[in-house]
Parts: sequence; C-alpha cells; structure tokens
Amino acid sequence: MINHARLAGLLENLDLAAVVAVSPENTHYLSSVFIRTQVSIRDRIACVIWPRSAPPTFLVCDIEESLARAEGTIEDVRTYVEFAQSPVGRLVEIVRDRGLSDRRLGVETRYLSVEQMADLRAALPQAEFVPLDDELAQVRAVKTAAEAARITAAYLATERIIREAWSRCGEGDTERTVANRMIETALARGAEGVRHLTLSSGENTVHPHMTPGHRVLAAGDTFLTDVGFFFDGFASDMARTGTVGRPSDEQRREYDAYRAAYVRLLQRIEPGMRASEVYRSCRDDLARAGYPLALPHVGHGLSRRGGHEAPILHPYNEMPLEPGMLLAIEPGFRPRPDRRYHLEDLVMVTASGAQVLTDWESTEAMLQLATA
Amino acid sequence: MINHARLAGLLENLDLAAVVAVSPENTHYLSSVFIRTQVSIRDRIACVIWPRSAPPTFLVCDIEESLARAEGTIEDVRTYVEFAQSPVGRLVEIVRDRGLSDRRLGVETRYLSVEQMADLRAALPQAEFVPLDDELAQVRAVKTAAEAARITAAYLATERIIREAWSRCGEGDTERTVANRMIETALARGAEGVRHLTLSSGENTVHPHMTPGHRVLAAGDTFLTDVGFFFDGFASDMARTGTVGRPSDEQRREYDAYRAAYVRLLQRIEPGMRASEVYRSCRDDLARAGYPLALPHVGHGLSRRGGHEAPILHPYNEMPLEPGMLLAIEPGFRPRPDRRYHLEDLVMVTASGAQVLTDWESTEAMLQLATA
Repeated sequence: MINHARLAGLLENLDLAAVVAVSPENTHYLSSVFIRTQVSIRDRIACVIWPRSAPPTFLVCDIEESLARAEGTIEDVRTYVEFAQSPVGRLVEIVRDRGLSDRRLGVETRYLSVEQMADLRAALPQAEFVPLDDELAQVRAVKTAAEAARITAAYLATERIIREAWSRCGEGDTERTVANRMIETALARGAEGVRHLTLSSGENTVHPHMTPGHRVLAAGDTFLTDVGFFFDGFASDMARTGTVGRPSDEQRREYDAYRAAYVRLLQRIEPGMRASEVYRSCRDDLARAGYPLALPHVGHGLSRRGGHEAPILHPYNEMPLEPGMLLAIEPGFRPRPDRRYHLEDLVMVTASGAQVLTDWESTEAMLQLATA
Repeated sequence: MINHARLAGLLENLDLAAVVAVSPENTHYLSSVFIRTQVSIRDRIACVIWPRSAPPTFLVCDIEESLARAEGTIEDVRTYVEFAQSPVGRLVEIVRDRGLSDRRLGVETRYLSVEQMADLRAALPQAEFVPLDDELAQVRAVKTAAEAARITAAYLATERIIREAWSRCGEGDTERTVANRMIETALARGAEGVRHLTLSSGENTVHPHMTPGHRVLAAGDTFLTDVGFFFDGFASDMARTGTVGRPSDEQRREYDAYRAAYVRLLQRIEPGMRASEVYRSCRDDLARAGYPLALPHVGHGLSRRGGHEAPILHPYNEMPLEPGMLLAIEPGFRPRPDRRYHLEDLVMVTASGAQVLTDWESTEAMLQLATA
C-alpha cells in the first residue's frame, strides 16, 4: 500500500541514494509491519533502508524478526541482538553493505535522537544526511485506494459503534460506564483494540484529552467522545457530541451554529486549496457567528495507526490539498468556558472537490442519550 | 510520588542548575500528568524545567493546559499555541526567564530530536547541556511506597482478570475471542484501558508481539498472554502460559523446567546484585537443564505507564539492584522452534532480598483452558 510513484519521485527529485526511515509511521508505511515495541521501547529501533534503485532492507530487533517475516512485505530482513549489538551500529553496517556509505541519504531529523544522529555521523563521515521528515509525510499523505478503503471501513464501523453503544447509555451512567460500553461494542463488532478514547460530560468536556472518569451523567449534560478503534490494522479518529436527554435551547443554538460551520467547511474543501486556507475559512465563518475557534487546527491527515499527519490544517501550513488526501476534519468549538462540542469526520480530497466518507448526516442533531 | 531525595541528589552530584525533562516518562513522573498526545503527536512537546533550588515549571501545548492544571502537581504551568509558537522557542524563553540560560542543564539526548537540540543550542549558546537519560532513569527506578502500591494493585487485578477470563475460554474459541474476554473482564473490574495485549496459541506463540487473530484454539495447544491494563493511571505488565485441556508429557516437562528456573530466579534476587548477574544466573540455570534463553533480557524495571525501564536485566547492564526497585521478571523460553512459554511477575527488591508481589503460586502448573 505504498504510494510508489510519490516515493520514487521524492528520491529522484532530491537526488537521494536512499531513504533511511526510523519513525514508527515510516517503518510501518514502508514495511507493512507495525512493531508495537518500537513505540513503547524507544531504544528498540526498527528501520527501513529504501534505496532509489534496489530492493529495501528492514532492520529489526531479533525479538521482532518472526513478526517482520510473517507480516512484512520486505524480503531482506536483518536483525540485531538487543543489548549485545548497537542498533545504530547494525544500521551503519547495512548502509556500508548496500554501498551507500558515501552517498546522499534522507533521514528523519525530527525523530532521530541527538545520540543516534551523532553515532551515524561519526560512523559514516562520507555520507551526506538530508532531513526528510516533511517530504516523507507528503508521500504518505496521498493514500492508495487500498489504504483509503481500510481507513474508511474503520471510520464507518466506529460510527456505528458510537451510535449503538450510546443508545444503551444515559442518565445515571458514569463516563467510565459509557466508555466501557463503547469498547465492548467495538470488540463485539470486530475491532482489534482501542487507539484512543476520550469521553467527557458536562464541565469535563472542556478538557480535550481527559480519561473517562466517575462523573455521573445528569439530564441536560453535554456529552462527547473522540475515539479511535483499530480494524484490520487501521485506525479511526472520530468525534461525536450529544446531550443527556433533550438539549436546552441554548445547547441547540450553539450546536446548530457549530454544525452549520462544520458542514460549510466539509463542503468547501477542494484540491489546490492550501491547508492554511481551510483553517482560515472555518475561523472566519465561526467569527461571523460570534464564536472563536477553540483549537489551533481544524483537522489533519492521518496515519495507518491514527496519528496526526500531514496535511495538518493550521494557519501556517501552506501545503496545497491534493486528490487522494484523507483528512479528519475537526474544528474545535467551546462557546462557554464550561462546555465544548466536537465533531470529527473523514473526508477524501477528490479531483473536483471532496467526498465525506463517513455518515456525517448522523450529526444533523445532537445524539440524545436516555434520561431516567 | 517523586523520589525527591534521589532527584535532589542527582542535581547536587552533577552540579546541575536544572533538569529539562522532555520524554513522556519523565514529564509524567515529574508533573503527575500523563499527556497522551505527547506520545501520539510527537511535535506537541511537553516538558518540565526542574531547577535545583526553586519550584518547577511545566510547559504544555495550550490544548492540554486544562488537564495539566486539573491533574498536575506543578503550579507554574505555561503554554504555547500549537503551530503559532515554537515549543522549543517557548522552552528557551522559560529557561531565560528562570535565570538558567548560562547554566549547566541536564537534558535527555536519547529523546530530544536532532532538530530540537540544534534549536536549543543555537538559542542558548551560553548554556552547558549534560546528557541525563540514564541518571533520570535511575531516579525513577527506586519507587516510592505510593507508586509501588499502585503498580502492585494493577498487577494483582490483572492476575485475577487473566484467571477469570481464561476460566470461561477454551477449545473452539479464537485468539481474538479470548483477548476480547480478557478486555471485557478488565473493564468490568475497573481497568481504565489496555496498555498492551499479546495473546497467541500453538505455533503463534513464537511471535512475542503478535496481535491476537483468528486462529482457533485446539486441544493440546500451548497458549499464552503478555498483557498490561491501566488501573488508577498505573499499568501492569504480566505474562501467563496455559494449555487447552491437559498438557502433554512433553509440555509438562518443558514447563516444569522453565518454571523451576523461574522460581529460582525470583528467589535469587537481592540488593547489590548487578542486573547482568541476574541475567547470567538465569541463563546458566537454564543451560544446565539443556535450554537456551530466548530473550536478550530476563526482566526490567517499569514506568507508571508500563514501559521497559531501568534496570533492564541484560548481560551488559552493571547497575546494582537497590531496595525499592520494582522488577518485572520474564525470562524467555522457547524449547522448540514452534512453541514458547512465558511467565512474568512483579518483584520488589527489599533491604534483605526480594519480595514477589504477585500471586506467583498460581503459576505452579500451567493454567488449563476448557476442552469441548
């Protein structure tokens, strides 16, 4: 599921002999293997050496070798013994072995640690290292059809899960109870796990990333979730807002203003628009209704495992939108100091505009949880 | 729950004016706030400036400000606006504001990226930067009583969850079904979420970190889990092995040899022993029984969120064990190419030896799942 044309173009345009990818998002992208311990145990590095005109090499800790061979797409898997061998030392050996030690190599200087880079420079004094973080993010940003289909499937399943779980929740439940019901529903519907689950009610809604706790839902509470589940190795990242029982007139007014701006934003996206323009159009739209934007961005691209990725829709990002980009759109809305609303849907930039891939009509009114 | 005596001693011994902590484990440790997006969105940095003789400062993205104030122990919370302000630029401002710009500062050179460190050096040319990764890990390694109690509680709950969930599983279930049952049981018993869940059967047991899949459990299968759940913000990291139905004579023989070596290892731990000695004693013990060790370490310390931490019990680590250290003991055992066994329990190093904090007697025989 690699966008081979863009990757080859990048190597060619920057005249690189190889890409040396070390971050979880890039090794996952290039190898098709997600190595969990690469995230949880940072010293246990995994990397992909992707030469311009030869097959790639995948370097992993020997603990992960069987997984790399079972699930990966790279044939040349090499290993190091943790603690006995320096992972960077093994990487240097491979760079030499592949004839790249005096060549121009793309590296991730926003991921490589100070120590790792110092070791690389010392061992490969003839190599030229070129920062490549943004460029690799741009390769990943335009999805292949297979990637887009799997991410979309994860979103659609997540949407059903939220509605199904919430239909069985209401006044008297704790935030934790509702979160658990969402997880149980997700597992029953085939999810492999939870990427993230923010869920909050009432005044807790103002914290974007609070762990669901013991607050008891009361009639009239605003209620929201920002959640990602894994399906078939791909993650969703979706938000929905509701009320416990019927919304008050004020809640309805606030939500309607937010949702109207949200819909206009979804409908305004088109290729060629810059990320910064998407942000500004939403900010100005809400400002006309008398509300400030409550987040420094209004959405983002997403990786296979759900991280924020290019293009991030913030006011300083001049990256133009291209057909095939997937965007999670999520303007922040906090009309009062004690209440926040959150919607997040998936959009694909197309040749002529954009297509909302989630069932966003489900956001027409706030979802209503049961009252006693 | 900071080990203040060790932290103060570190600043004093290395003559540091301040520690600048940027990694999730250290900012969590020093602030008591876990900021999820610091892990999932690496550019959204959070850091703690901890001066030797003045109160600390906590710098977070403004999105996380409310959480930092609601859950944190550091009063001086400062923020940056994502994308509009450089996080490292704000950190530099704080370092200057705190009168530290020409002082000796401890930094994490195994976490700071090449770009971040270059920005720090350029903006603070008078400062002296001292790598402090290992030293901070040693501060964290000796737990306070409150930390140890909460980690122990997470382990004891996890042990009950494994046994309870497995008692309702058996032949004909898929790995995924069993994993889901474990998660549902954990949520019902108060867990806030899953840190990691490896679960495999039969020949899949040889992959240390495979996602539970669609393999159907058959009578006679070896079966294992390596799992961590969050309770009260703290994580467990525990492993158990079983069989579907009664073990064969060969499985029993293999397991008995492994478990006997495991018990001897648990009983041999004492203060003053070096991490490398713990490793070697287990390797030699298994070698006498004719088996090789299947992992490059036999255990590790653990962070609040469950990562591998100092002291890692590997053959090149000369760190001596100290009273108050918590260790997850987990020698790897793979007597055949298609079968692996795994046990992992929690041990505290005491003044006179070590105390196993989990109910490790539950490992006396392999747990047996039901046959049809």
